[in-house]
Amino acid sequence: MPEVSLPNSPFDALIGSEWISDDPDDARVRLTMTDDHRQPMGIMHGGVMVSLIESICSRTCARAVLPDNRVSMGQNISVSFLRPISDGTIEVRARAVHRGRMTWVWQAEVLDPEGRVCATAQMTTAIRDAPEGVDLSSLSGG
Amino acid sequence: MPEVSLPNSPFDALIGSEWISDDPDDARVRLTMTDDHRQPMGIMHGGVMVSLIESICSRTCARAVLPDNRVSMGQNISVSFLRPISDGTIEVRARAVHRGRMTWVWQAEVLDPEGRVCATAQMTTAIRDAPEGVDLSSLSGG
Amino acid sequence: MPEVSLPNSPFDALIGSEWISDDPDDARVRLTMTDDHRQPMGIMHGGVMVSLIESICSRTCARAVLPDNRVSMGQNISVSFLRPISDGTIEVRARAVHRGRMTWVWQAEVLDPEGRVCATAQMTTAIRDAPEGVDLSSLSGG
Amino acid sequence: MPEVSLPNSPFDALIGSEWISDDPDDARVRLTMTDDHRQPMGIMHGGVMVSLIESICSRTCARAVLPDNRVSMGQNISVSFLRPISDGTIEVRARAVHRGRMTWVWQAEVLDPEGRVCATAQMTTAIRDAPEGVDLSSLSGG
Repeated sequence: MPEVSLPNSPFDALIGSEWISDDPDDARVRLTMTDDHRQPMGIMHGGVMVSLIESICSRTCARAVLPDNRVSMGQNISVSFLRPISDGTIEVRARAVHRGRMTWVWQAEVLDPEGRVCATAQMTTAIRDAPEGVDLSSLSGG
Repeated sequence: MPEVSLPNSPFDALIGSEWISDDPDDARVRLTMTDDHRQPMGIMHGGVMVSLIESICSRTCARAVLPDNRVSMGQNISVSFLRPISDGTIEVRARAVHRGRMTWVWQAEVLDPEGRVCATAQMTTAIRDAPEGVDLSSLSGG
Repeated sequence: MPEVSLPNSPFDALIGSEWISDDPDDARVRLTMTDDHRQPMGIMHGGVMVSLIESICSRTCARAVLPDNRVSMGQNISVSFLRPISDGTIEVRARAVHRGRMTWVWQAEVLDPEGRVCATAQMTTAIRDAPEGVDLSSLSGG
Repeated sequence: MPEVSLPNSPFDALIGSEWISDDPDDARVRLTMTDDHRQPMGIMHGGVMVSLIESICSRTCARAVLPDNRVSMGQNISVSFLRPISDGTIEVRARAVHRGRMTWVWQAEVLDPEGRVCATAQMTTAIRDAPEGVDLSSLSGG
């Protein structure tokens, strides 16, 4: 895959995402939990987990289709929460199980520091041509 | 419904949620978009929308079952993204379409400043007895 | 909307679907429960409900885009089961809450004979151009 | 796991399901496509795939919890359709990725005769005590 640079994601900076891998077969992002990530009962807010899943799938898809001057955006996400997370560094892993011309479908899971699956997800990202006149290839290359 | 006070939600404070209504028939939360909420292309990160949906459903459910010394937590969420949001104040509206003993099911939508539906969601919150020895009624009243 | 005739759906015939309305604002299909629709415990199999939801959304979408020589197919469905159904005539109602160029998004619900909501669903149908050389307009008109 | 016998599923008989394995780590069901399974365009109706997924997850869960005098029912299912199926014998594979006291969560996929993934799903089954006075252990044993 050609090297591409994506603009930063301000919301990921706010949350504290740490990109590990943009490989569509094994995409990964990490987050070290702070008090900012808690919901009222003190455990990690489900929105933090969903945000990470969204980010890793969207970002990995965007990187993969950008050299063809195409863009990607989230279309649908479904998440099951299995187990609460109280602290430590979590990892989200995602894999593109379908790579169509118009949509990619992803499976993802959130792992706590002990490697236990705390949430599982299925996400669909839509792929479209870049708006007319926009050349995204300027973002390619290092 | 008796008056109940829930502890604050640090993640909602980080995002900037503004609680409007905790009525299970018409729960509402608002958010004024800032640059912190953007994804790399400049539009609102889907995780922001999902986090608000999660918060309003979970919070409203928790308030409703807390007087019975029961707790609520997110179990499942499914969101479709329909239209990008670029700025302004958005509102999330949720309604409990099923209120069972063990689960509540919610429908929610995200509206942009023009009132257009930008995302629709279905969420399940699980209801459980409070852990033994815990009396949540101390949070009631006010 | 121009009158269009869709080919029959053999699976709907097997199940026993009765089409009531193909209006995207208020699409409806009915089914009178027989023993064939039961799962092992004697209640209606969830697959029957999901099949009806799928059928009414896909069929209504197909009818709506066929005059433009476009086709529709199910892309994603998410269903919550709220209450068991034991007998009688059920109705599924669906409404297109988003009608984009590439996808439509639907909300649907399954009602038992007393009008209680027994399942709620969200479905995405994908819209694509008909395969090259295929003219679907032959299906239009009475 | 003790040997348990479940009552037949009339809807599965109508569809033509063939049970292969009730192992929660690798549950499987097969179906040989007939014309009855088609939607109007001639491909397999999505409802057929969803019905098989529902059946294999529900049945496998029911078998697993029945010796404890507990019952299982479908609570939520989310399916992405990736690729149409035209004929042959398909297989649905499911795996319980979470086995809680109140809910189990499953991942499932539908494979066409060439082994290609045509749909992926996530399903939640609810586990509850059998209604008072009902002894399901009579269904146990060969």
